[in-house]
Amino acid sequence: MIIVGELINSSRKAIAPAVESRDAAFIQEVAQKQLDAGATYIDVNCGTRVHDEPEMLTWLVETVQAAVNAPLCIDSPNPVAIEAALKVHKGQALINSISAEKERYEAILPLITKHNARIMALCMDDTGMPETAEQRLVIVERLYKGLTEACVKPEDIFFDPLVKPISVNTNFGNEVLETIKEIHARYPGVHTTCGLSNISFGLPVRKLLNQAFLVMCIANGMDSAILDPLDNQIMSLLIASEALVGRDDYCMNYLTAQRKGIFS
Amino acid sequence: MIIVGELINSSRKAIAPAVESRDAAFIQEVAQKQLDAGATYIDVNCGTRVHDEPEMLTWLVETVQAAVNAPLCIDSPNPVAIEAALKVHKGQALINSISAEKERYEAILPLITKHNARIMALCMDDTGMPETAEQRLVIVERLYKGLTEACVKPEDIFFDPLVKPISVNTNFGNEVLETIKEIHARYPGVHTTCGLSNISFGLPVRKLLNQAFLVMCIANGMDSAILDPLDNQIMSLLIASEALVGRDDYCMNYLTAQRKGIFS
Repeated sequence: MIIVGELINSSRKAIAPAVESRDAAFIQEVAQKQLDAGATYIDVNCGTRVHDEPEMLTWLVETVQAAVNAPLCIDSPNPVAIEAALKVHKGQALINSISAEKERYEAILPLITKHNARIMALCMDDTGMPETAEQRLVIVERLYKGLTEACVKPEDIFFDPLVKPISVNTNFGNEVLETIKEIHARYPGVHTTCGLSNISFGLPVRKLLNQAFLVMCIANGMDSAILDPLDNQIMSLLIASEALVGRDDYCMNYLTAQRKGIFS
Repeated sequence: MIIVGELINSSRKAIAPAVESRDAAFIQEVAQKQLDAGATYIDVNCGTRVHDEPEMLTWLVETVQAAVNAPLCIDSPNPVAIEAALKVHKGQALINSISAEKERYEAILPLITKHNARIMALCMDDTGMPETAEQRLVIVERLYKGLTEACVKPEDIFFDPLVKPISVNTNFGNEVLETIKEIHARYPGVHTTCGLSNISFGLPVRKLLNQAFLVMCIANGMDSAILDPLDNQIMSLLIASEALVGRDDYCMNYLTAQRKGIFS
């Protein structure tokens, strides 16, 4: 499972002041903890810093990579900020994200190819966010074709179906699960990922729904997730799920996690 | 979700003495609590009472149904005990279980048709317990054909794929998930069910694996389970899972469970 640690985001209460004051030690500690807890990528997002996002995102990349030996997920809707961050990033970055929206697609694609980055590709185009699996898969096909023709390798693409709340339509969970399954059936080698929490928007005890939905996504083949790796409850279910679907030889990760006390 | 409350089983430490002393009040309380917690069927099993099982199972049926207005799951490998219990059971019972083992099949089938009972059908024949989904589906086809030709309605059949431990083979979870999905695709109207706990045999923190596997089974279409409805953790995930796969209109059950404090 490729885990993207989501904590370094300036929209979070604990992170905003550390970004504001350029508290490198605090940011580095949050990065290290996520890495220790199993994150493959450390997400960096300062989208709330509209006035100085390129400068601040560059600082975040340099600060985090000065402390941890890990690739980052460069998380921004702003191509200028992404490019600035990519220029200082060491190793192969993961960009979050491209979509099939014309303007965004044309701005992000050259950055991917120039910097040999991996890419999160959102199932979204200029008509908005799709509702059904079928609508999502039409967008996936366009993105897959466009990206691979531009020489992006399938294994560098992470499709995010874009989760919508079941409080709005009780079938929205099924549409995402179906999309994940079909993406893996149709495009061998690509990854799927998602930000889970939107599934539970508008409902109480959101963690419970997010946890169960993660388990279902993994059962349908999802092999990456953007989450808080310091949350032992969700990590426990993630590790158990991987064992249950045969992705953990001899259940070694499961047994190791148990010894480390993750499941307590 | 059709929940079979599993607690009234003489192999359980808390139940054995109550059965031994014919403590009707205690047994009735356990039945009532399971019903209140959402059980559709109350399982009764006194398989440890080899010397007096027919008599004891009859007593359990009469005792439980004197207190609660619910159908029971008559749980025994012994056709004589099942028949004795069916004779006193009020309403449509669920028999646990038939299989494709010749002797068992021939002994149980007449009881189903005579008493118009519902039936749990185990994916097992005289060659033993199957390993792959394909092997299970061959047995399902034989059972489906035989039962429906004997005029058992599809909606009265509950297929149990028979869960084997992932500690023995890491693909055993996938085989069950695939079996569940295929049964619903091939035989509209039938139910699927399973006893979850065998999945985690031989591994630590078994509840975690059992919980995640329940969520996965529900995502694949399973619409019944044999479990402890007084276990709020597993019930929480069950209720969340039903909402996530669109089986809970307006998330009403989810919201009701939250108000009742199940998720605390």
